[in-house]
Amino acid sequence: MRRAALGGGKRLRAFLTIETAGLFGASPDGADRVAAAFECLHAYSLAHDDLPCMDDDDLRRGLPTLHVEWDEATAVLAGDALQALAFELLTSPATHRSGAVRAALALKLAEASGFGGMVGGQALDIAAETAPAPLTLAGIERLQAKKTGALIAASVEAGAILGRARAAERRALREYALELGAAFQIADDILDATGDAATAGKRLGKDADAGKATFVGALGIEGARTRAARLAEDAAGRLAAFGDAATPLRLAARFAISRQR
Amino acid sequence: MRRAALGGGKRLRAFLTIETAGLFGASPDGADRVAAAFECLHAYSLAHDDLPCMDDDDLRRGLPTLHVEWDEATAVLAGDALQALAFELLTSPATHRSGAVRAALALKLAEASGFGGMVGGQALDIAAETAPAPLTLAGIERLQAKKTGALIAASVEAGAILGRARAAERRALREYALELGAAFQIADDILDATGDAATAGKRLGKDADAGKATFVGALGIEGARTRAARLAEDAAGRLAAFGDAATPLRLAARFAISRQR
Repeated sequence: MRRAALGGGKRLRAFLTIETAGLFGASPDGADRVAAAFECLHAYSLAHDDLPCMDDDDLRRGLPTLHVEWDEATAVLAGDALQALAFELLTSPATHRSGAVRAALALKLAEASGFGGMVGGQALDIAAETAPAPLTLAGIERLQAKKTGALIAASVEAGAILGRARAAERRALREYALELGAAFQIADDILDATGDAATAGKRLGKDADAGKATFVGALGIEGARTRAARLAEDAAGRLAAFGDAATPLRLAARFAISRQR
Repeated sequence: MRRAALGGGKRLRAFLTIETAGLFGASPDGADRVAAAFECLHAYSLAHDDLPCMDDDDLRRGLPTLHVEWDEATAVLAGDALQALAFELLTSPATHRSGAVRAALALKLAEASGFGGMVGGQALDIAAETAPAPLTLAGIERLQAKKTGALIAASVEAGAILGRARAAERRALREYALELGAAFQIADDILDATGDAATAGKRLGKDADAGKATFVGALGIEGARTRAARLAEDAAGRLAAFGDAATPLRLAARFAISRQR
């Protein structure tokens, strides 16, 4: 079976889709197309998040951000086109012979990335920066579940849709993905507070500078590490029914809390 | 049969989808949802086009633009969420019982709105502003066919997909839509050059100020009027096979060249 490389946060979603689809023996070509769609969606979100009117970042994956390398209009349009491309990839007949599967994939992505998911989470994040009171831990969890958790969970669920998983299998995979996503986000906060910018390929320490409410702020570094480790362990434990075939997904949960970039 | 109101450019796409679907007796509820999806997509494009880094407009439909009323981040995110909502509407089971139809609708919208269509046209438009030589008439036609024509054509084709039209019917409707779209865009240029801002609900005369290549610039006012009228007539002529049932679509072609806003 083909395996997606797992290095940096940037290919996590593709890895999750491909490995989950692989559990059910789904066509690798279809899984590759779906994985590419999720990476397009994620890349669009980064291009827009990096804009001066949003997080105003100038470094991403060790390279100048789009609006720095080109200009803001290009960054907006590139993001817009990447979002459309994601849905084009999912709904093209080459992705799966069943129209119902293709439509379900697109619906899953739309729900996870729109106002009820990623975009809504980003809006909450911006609102929190100017809110009179800092977010509670529960508030941070809700925000991050939308902002990053929804798309990570959807990338796993897309693999399950491609593989026509049964309802119980889908539920287990969804629990796994939500816990992995939460662990991933806590690790991201830890990286932002303690990591090395050159290794990470992006500016760090900016959440604290911006006064953002983070897991590290709410739990402290050690508290955050403990919580992330427990979530990653819980996530891995959801996959018992899949046996050894799910080893790569278990490793992904461990990877989520150990990455340096 | 329910009829969509046709007033201002803003509901043209919904009207086209609903009237085309009606030719084939498609479910009005499904057509309403598809029409709403096309209007969401169109609204997202306006929110992003109005941004300071794009066309920098402060008035739209007689109201302050999103980034003026709120801020740029909100305008970016609202546009992003509207794009996702468009695909969510198209791929929800409530839109059509056939997954193949839902996936085909989403694929049509993705192709028409992405880099090969609307977004690519907008990028060409921005590039043309700083190009050393002005666009030729053929260049303007190609640009506008992508920037506005593709989505107008897709709104008609979506109605045909919903109605499971035969190939010959789809071809005739596509020709109709492409000619209507071209007539609409020429009329838009005429409106920009000669219209009244209060009636139009948006700033006018800005294409000429920006040195943009327009149909009016290439053909003169009278030449542009003649061309738009011929295109609208050609468009109406494509619908002969549909008889009286297509009268609203023929009126839409006439409307496209007579609107004041």
